[in-house]
Amino acid sequence: MSHTVRIVVDAMGGDYAPAEPVRGAVEAANRESSIEVIFTGDEEAIRKELSALTYPEDRVRIVPTTQVIETGEPPVKAIQTKKDSSLVVGLQLVHKGEADAFVSSGSTGAVLAGGQAIVKKTRGIQRAPLAPLIPTASGASLLIDCGASVDARPQHLVQFAVIGSLYMKEVMGLKEPKVGLVNIGAEEEKGNALCKETYPLLKECKDIHFIGNVEARDIPRGVADVYVTEAFVGNVILKMFEGVGGVFLSEMKQAMMSSARSKIGGLLVKPALKETLKKFDASNYGGAPLLGLRGLVVKTHGSSKAKEFTNTLLQCLQFQQQDVNGKIQAFLESRTEPAD
Amino acid sequence: MSHTVRIVVDAMGGDYAPAEPVRGAVEAANRESSIEVIFTGDEEAIRKELSALTYPEDRVRIVPTTQVIETGEPPVKAIQTKKDSSLVVGLQLVHKGEADAFVSSGSTGAVLAGGQAIVKKTRGIQRAPLAPLIPTASGASLLIDCGASVDARPQHLVQFAVIGSLYMKEVMGLKEPKVGLVNIGAEEEKGNALCKETYPLLKECKDIHFIGNVEARDIPRGVADVYVTEAFVGNVILKMFEGVGGVFLSEMKQAMMSSARSKIGGLLVKPALKETLKKFDASNYGGAPLLGLRGLVVKTHGSSKAKEFTNTLLQCLQFQQQDVNGKIQAFLESRTEPAD
Repeated sequence: MSHTVRIVVDAMGGDYAPAEPVRGAVEAANRESSIEVIFTGDEEAIRKELSALTYPEDRVRIVPTTQVIETGEPPVKAIQTKKDSSLVVGLQLVHKGEADAFVSSGSTGAVLAGGQAIVKKTRGIQRAPLAPLIPTASGASLLIDCGASVDARPQHLVQFAVIGSLYMKEVMGLKEPKVGLVNIGAEEEKGNALCKETYPLLKECKDIHFIGNVEARDIPRGVADVYVTEAFVGNVILKMFEGVGGVFLSEMKQAMMSSARSKIGGLLVKPALKETLKKFDASNYGGAPLLGLRGLVVKTHGSSKAKEFTNTLLQCLQFQQQDVNGKIQAFLESRTEPAD
Repeated sequence: MSHTVRIVVDAMGGDYAPAEPVRGAVEAANRESSIEVIFTGDEEAIRKELSALTYPEDRVRIVPTTQVIETGEPPVKAIQTKKDSSLVVGLQLVHKGEADAFVSSGSTGAVLAGGQAIVKKTRGIQRAPLAPLIPTASGASLLIDCGASVDARPQHLVQFAVIGSLYMKEVMGLKEPKVGLVNIGAEEEKGNALCKETYPLLKECKDIHFIGNVEARDIPRGVADVYVTEAFVGNVILKMFEGVGGVFLSEMKQAMMSSARSKIGGLLVKPALKETLKKFDASNYGGAPLLGLRGLVVKTHGSSKAKEFTNTLLQCLQFQQQDVNGKIQAFLESRTEPAD
């Protein structure tokens, strides 16, 4: 099981590139001898960051590129025209089998579009879902799909459920991940047309532990390990997390600064609050995998620091060592009706 | 403008019935001489609550009923079979023109189903949206629709936008309510099929101040006054608010109890935090109106206390005095192509 896992890291993506991706990836290589890091990006800038670090030189290399895809660019066009960007070259390495995984903090749209166009979907996968881990009161759950392909059909959601379940089992180490369908009521007959059609399919699916409908109210409590939903709704859930959390935090901080009394109180509770907020820190879990592709592509937050990159690379290692893609493939083949 | 506004209050609905609905409604009648309260419910129980209160006897009366619709009952069946329930009799009063508005903390499903089946939709309204006010960092915004009719079509969303805008203008006193379409990206071409079709319709609608797409992340900041969305998504947004807020608060409380130091700090910051949290207290704004009906039906939270009832009755007064339904009617007529 200790084959080397080759992970491409886009050294030009995100708010803190190249410093943080380089530091984070090197840290992962230092920790795990099965990790080989391939940076794509401006060679000189990467070398400069590397020069300050200690790392296994035989497992860290650079594939120099000259272009960068910016966050604001129309993704599909950027992928098509910037052939020598850190993102396109990185994805090409996975496509050509010269790397196993690709990690980037760059444009979400470009990672999604490029992942599907360049690395390509696994045979039998209808849609490649983007599945971030969301922090909950009881740990972290996978929210699948938050990608760009909206208006999914019931059979897509069934694939998401199985893929998500495999991910939580093999990569996150859960024994029997609980799978819930995001809906507006708990009863089987509730919801929109998509949910009503999907429910019975999930119920009869032998490959998952389906616990039924889950209302959005219960998502932050972590009642399920895998929340299955269509990408539009997944996106709304993800952003409500960020939005409500952000407003709460900023209002709390403001309240603590509002008087001398509350300032002193704020100083006293700060360490305990910090400890609590760590639980809700997404960087503990790493980036969001784009699943169902022929290799692994992971999108990390635009504001990722070294720690998130390190954790993401460790996820990639686990993904590869547990052969998650092989298991997805096996599931897909088991669903193909045998010719009798 | 000082005609009496007759508001039916379901004295049997909600966790604190009949005490809190009775107290809250009486308080509204004491404050506003244009309010007439009609309680439906168990006469003896209501009289008992009233006996402890001072109120204008000529503007508070009881229509006795013998049945109660419980939260767990299948709504449509309950409406059909419990003809002498506080909810059905109350809605009938509005239908018959013997009252202008109906307020209940009872079963959401029964209020939604009963509102549409008994009070009936305004001619020209395709769907009656449930539109709660959600607290944001900058006040309160209307989230329309959070009702039970999912899978809306573009023309429904346009009606929601206009109705919601009228509500915020006439009832909440905003000059030019900003209307946003909930979407997964800011650009016009983003989103699912529904959003893509709805955007241009909202853009060309002269009756609203459309500000474009709004991402869920920005909803809690209050970037728009009216958030237009399909009911499934509206429901998810509403419940994410509750869920994320609830988990945050409980984790914060736990953190503050975790050590002697943080306990003292917690006591010191408590008054300031309480003040801040008031902003996020939905009861300050009153219940969620079910709009587009021939009368006004308002659903208050199941856990509503007197204050929320009082505020809801004041909303009903405003709604009636500003003739919001007349204005909705005028809009609908303006959209009907005149026969040339």
